[in-house]
Amino acid sequence: MSNSSREMPREIYLQDVPLDTARTLFREALDQLPAWPARRAERIPLARARDRVTAGPVWALNSSPSFASAAMDGVAVLAEATVGATETSPRVLKLQSEAIWIDTGDPMPAGTDAVVMVEDVHDRGDGAIEILSAVAPWQHVRPMGEDIVATELVVPQHRKLEPRDLGAIAAAGHADVEVLAQPRVTVIPTGSELVPIGSHPGPGKLIEFNGLVLSSLAESWGAEVVCSQIVPDDIAAIRTAVSAAVSSADVVVINAGSSAGREDFSARVIDELGEVFVHGVAIRPGHPVVLGVVDGKPVIGIPGYPVSAALTFELFVRPLVEECLCLPPTKSQVLAAVMARKTVSVAGDDEFIRVRVGCVGDRVIAAPL
Amino acid sequence: MSNSSREMPREIYLQDVPLDTARTLFREALDQLPAWPARRAERIPLARARDRVTAGPVWALNSSPSFASAAMDGVAVLAEATVGATETSPRVLKLQSEAIWIDTGDPMPAGTDAVVMVEDVHDRGDGAIEILSAVAPWQHVRPMGEDIVATELVVPQHRKLEPRDLGAIAAAGHADVEVLAQPRVTVIPTGSELVPIGSHPGPGKLIEFNGLVLSSLAESWGAEVVCSQIVPDDIAAIRTAVSAAVSSADVVVINAGSSAGREDFSARVIDELGEVFVHGVAIRPGHPVVLGVVDGKPVIGIPGYPVSAALTFELFVRPLVEECLCLPPTKSQVLAAVMARKTVSVAGDDEFIRVRVGCVGDRVIAAPL
Repeated sequence: MSNSSREMPREIYLQDVPLDTARTLFREALDQLPAWPARRAERIPLARARDRVTAGPVWALNSSPSFASAAMDGVAVLAEATVGATETSPRVLKLQSEAIWIDTGDPMPAGTDAVVMVEDVHDRGDGAIEILSAVAPWQHVRPMGEDIVATELVVPQHRKLEPRDLGAIAAAGHADVEVLAQPRVTVIPTGSELVPIGSHPGPGKLIEFNGLVLSSLAESWGAEVVCSQIVPDDIAAIRTAVSAAVSSADVVVINAGSSAGREDFSARVIDELGEVFVHGVAIRPGHPVVLGVVDGKPVIGIPGYPVSAALTFELFVRPLVEECLCLPPTKSQVLAAVMARKTVSVAGDDEFIRVRVGCVGDRVIAAPL
Repeated sequence: MSNSSREMPREIYLQDVPLDTARTLFREALDQLPAWPARRAERIPLARARDRVTAGPVWALNSSPSFASAAMDGVAVLAEATVGATETSPRVLKLQSEAIWIDTGDPMPAGTDAVVMVEDVHDRGDGAIEILSAVAPWQHVRPMGEDIVATELVVPQHRKLEPRDLGAIAAAGHADVEVLAQPRVTVIPTGSELVPIGSHPGPGKLIEFNGLVLSSLAESWGAEVVCSQIVPDDIAAIRTAVSAAVSSADVVVINAGSSAGREDFSARVIDELGEVFVHGVAIRPGHPVVLGVVDGKPVIGIPGYPVSAALTFELFVRPLVEECLCLPPTKSQVLAAVMARKTVSVAGDDEFIRVRVGCVGDRVIAAPL
């Protein structure tokens, strides 16, 4: 930002609309776009699929286990050979032919259908054993397909995959899974006063760190993020950066320059390249938000003040990422609390205040930071 | 597992101890180890540092912002030049010398110490302006160091880094951050009946998917996981695999073979290579757990049944990962509920039952799955 003459006309005016109105206007605009929401499927190995979202339902290729197995250590027998066995009148069975020692998990040998627990077996030591308790068919046997039966549904469409889901998909015979591609978010930091992270800011210069915070937030929501080079406050340079971004990204965010000052170019650029639907939302902090569309992609201008940037990014960009991933919108947790001191908000604005919450006696107190 | 003769002696006996006793015994064993917990520091770029844990406190290299700047659009002035200004008796100041047009965020020009809001300025159009309201020194000025003052603490030691922390560290002049290395967990799947993910299980064969589930869980806790090749039920092969694992990993997990059957080698191998402190924990499912130490590293044997494997991994391995990362142990959320049906547990055992929770009227009901 320079101190050049103030006479330059402001072409774009900020006109705050309520938060709900802003969301509705933007929603209606997005609903007109043929390629929104951006949803592409890709097949990836299960080892990389944690927290990804299934593109479709996953069906079992095989049953698991694929064979009946012993559920106890003991002897595998044909149940009918044990009928009437008790401690006082045991049934005698020949080892190898009529009774086979078996460990938990072993496949049931052909011609057997039950397991007698080791506690109910007396080994006579002469190649025969005594069965001290009768068993029913399939007793102590883990049936084939106990976990998964071939052709059944293993994981539904649009499920965010947890570790146990990955196990179930693997057990069902798959090595990979079709998931929704991560939505691509490009963040464009703008400002002639900005210098990159790790450089020493000279007089009047600021380290550009919003891009890092916003990228990191969007990655935690499941997006794939590109944070572009810093673009100076030059309308042509910003126009070029936005044009390039919309050609590859699903969502483009211009950081700073979203207000209506002499060098706030976000709304002007979006207006030139596409359409602005909202410029100004009645929220504090963060009111100079621009919600627009360029080349069928949402392009959002957010303010530069770090707290405002993070708040408006969460309010307007997170729902877009979740929509592309078919995830339900994240709802904020609601906690009723008494304010530690009187706080006055401007009438008509939704105000977001960071607070520290604690208990005093049995009251929940929120102290503004 | 084969059906070989049962005559082979069992050298290791399972003896269940209560969960708290198991934890205490293992805790005492770990406290004797000179190199436990495994904590190494490494320096990584901020862009990769989300969810990593700081190895030490992070101090500010510079202040941010590094200069005083306008907090409003208006004119920068020396406050004392505006004393007494009102709408009815404005103070007249010459542009460029006594008053300089300024936008929010611009550095304060030399010789100015306050900003008069644009609403309180009347431009006469002759190179002079009228100030309609007096300002105090530093009014509408964002002071140098408002966010961060050089040398102050930006982020404490052992903090799990959130996006806003990364921004603060960058603003303080750093491009990278020293974090605790991810603890290295090696999972060794054992079992002659196991085949790799993606293969077709022939008769009596099972797809090995526990390794995937356990790896994915440990990664979500912040560990770096190696899942080794499947090792057959051969004591020499398991011994070799465990020896190799302890030479590089911080924590080694042997999956299956943790019981006391003829082909359950985990406890025997740990006993031969190191020491077994617990074999058997009075929990259901999952009681045949082995807690031991080899070459100064914790080595844990867990059962093969998938639900037991995941439960015991969570109970015994997660705290080790958290200890290496200096994170407080994750506490389970507690919810009081009425059981949907009578459930009887074995006296002396801690039983873990998966339930579905719902509300019926104003009662919370837990239905066992």
